[in-house]
Amino acid sequence: MTSSKETRHLWKATIAYDGTDFHGWQIQPDRATIQGRLKSVLAEIEGGPVDVQGAGRTDAGVHALGQVASFALRNPIPGANLRKAMNRLLPGAIRITGIEEASGDFHARHSAKAKLYEYRLWREDVCPPFLARYVCHYPYPLDEEAMIEAAAGFEGTRDFLSLAAAGGPEQGSSVRTIFSSVLSREEQQLVYRVRGSGFLYHMVRNIVGTLLEVGRGRYPPSEVAKILAARARSAAGPTAPARGLFLVRVNYENGG
Amino acid sequence: MTSSKETRHLWKATIAYDGTDFHGWQIQPDRATIQGRLKSVLAEIEGGPVDVQGAGRTDAGVHALGQVASFALRNPIPGANLRKAMNRLLPGAIRITGIEEASGDFHARHSAKAKLYEYRLWREDVCPPFLARYVCHYPYPLDEEAMIEAAAGFEGTRDFLSLAAAGGPEQGSSVRTIFSSVLSREEQQLVYRVRGSGFLYHMVRNIVGTLLEVGRGRYPPSEVAKILAARARSAAGPTAPARGLFLVRVNYENGG
Repeated sequence: MTSSKETRHLWKATIAYDGTDFHGWQIQPDRATIQGRLKSVLAEIEGGPVDVQGAGRTDAGVHALGQVASFALRNPIPGANLRKAMNRLLPGAIRITGIEEASGDFHARHSAKAKLYEYRLWREDVCPPFLARYVCHYPYPLDEEAMIEAAAGFEGTRDFLSLAAAGGPEQGSSVRTIFSSVLSREEQQLVYRVRGSGFLYHMVRNIVGTLLEVGRGRYPPSEVAKILAARARSAAGPTAPARGLFLVRVNYENGG
Repeated sequence: MTSSKETRHLWKATIAYDGTDFHGWQIQPDRATIQGRLKSVLAEIEGGPVDVQGAGRTDAGVHALGQVASFALRNPIPGANLRKAMNRLLPGAIRITGIEEASGDFHARHSAKAKLYEYRLWREDVCPPFLARYVCHYPYPLDEEAMIEAAAGFEGTRDFLSLAAAGGPEQGSSVRTIFSSVLSREEQQLVYRVRGSGFLYHMVRNIVGTLLEVGRGRYPPSEVAKILAARARSAAGPTAPARGLFLVRVNYENGG
């Protein structure tokens, strides 16, 4: 490691955030976004503009337990100090939970092998006020067994066009690989966990909206295969609210 | 039960709230308060003004798991429907968790025999964004054993004038009975629980501020007796932030 001004240190930061008060990950003019806040804090530390890449572009209101960002700095600040400086400058709703130097070709999005998302449905009559920002409150009757069966139908390498938002940012193929898609009852919550190579815009929330339609009895679990085959957004259920969704983890090793 | 317009039904409601976005319990003109929201929701249900009494006047930013309110309605609505109607009209940050008819002399504050408050200090380096509204983040060194010893020093029937906010609303005696005062380490948190017959304005937060001074080594646990004997606010520690404080429970039976 030299002290030349041209030497850049590449960093991999793990980030938790409460997305409630942000207009999503991606930087936008005159709006509070996670990427925007990170860029301005890093610019202050670096004394110049810093490019920040995120593993997943979470929507407005979506949260993260383990989002990953990559960025390069000329400032030779050690990792522990960098983490402290960032957390001092960032709002409490965004926290750097881990930071490490990365090798030269690391890119938070392009290097990602898998992402795990979690969606939480609160099933009790009353939703505790301390959870209101972090769950979708759905106290109405649902055939949870049918939903659990339907969830498995999203696994595999498939064309997920029916689950992609119309007018989403993606270009090209809508084929993605879902390694696991599991709904389970955990005390007062129904928790949906989905791990895949990548996700289309609104895909997880559209899967949850489709599972809710199964739960309401609008169609049976076997309908999932037909919905995917239709390759039409209108075939699937509505988009579930953002607040129940968390980006839990990003993996950079196969099978990680 | 008659259907006469003059018959009033007295209700006891148990309420949980996230106090972050409210200016405390007590109604104030042009400010969002818990009591103010309850009064306006009940006025809508009743079709006329309703008086609402609370067991404890929590400050701005203080939360409740089990605040209790009493009020009387002429509307003969059943309890289960009343609870649903209130929760439909209230913001998600305020939830009616239980409701029952009360006998004619019940008053949320005057009938209360004991209140339990809890204060949460987050001791890890990084505070998860999902807890930022509900804990006081204190990652600096503390002599926790000394604090645990000091906490017991607040038990008993004592004059708590040293722990009362200057200019607080109380008149008359500053003697209160504290049944239990216990600090304990629970995973990443230090949790202070105090149960007493009543509390002066800011008293719990001032006790926590005093315990933090003990933890920092500013004075030993034995100083608590001297602080109480001084009967002067300046003798005790500063007021701890509101966000870590919860009104957990109000008891209406002796020993409850």
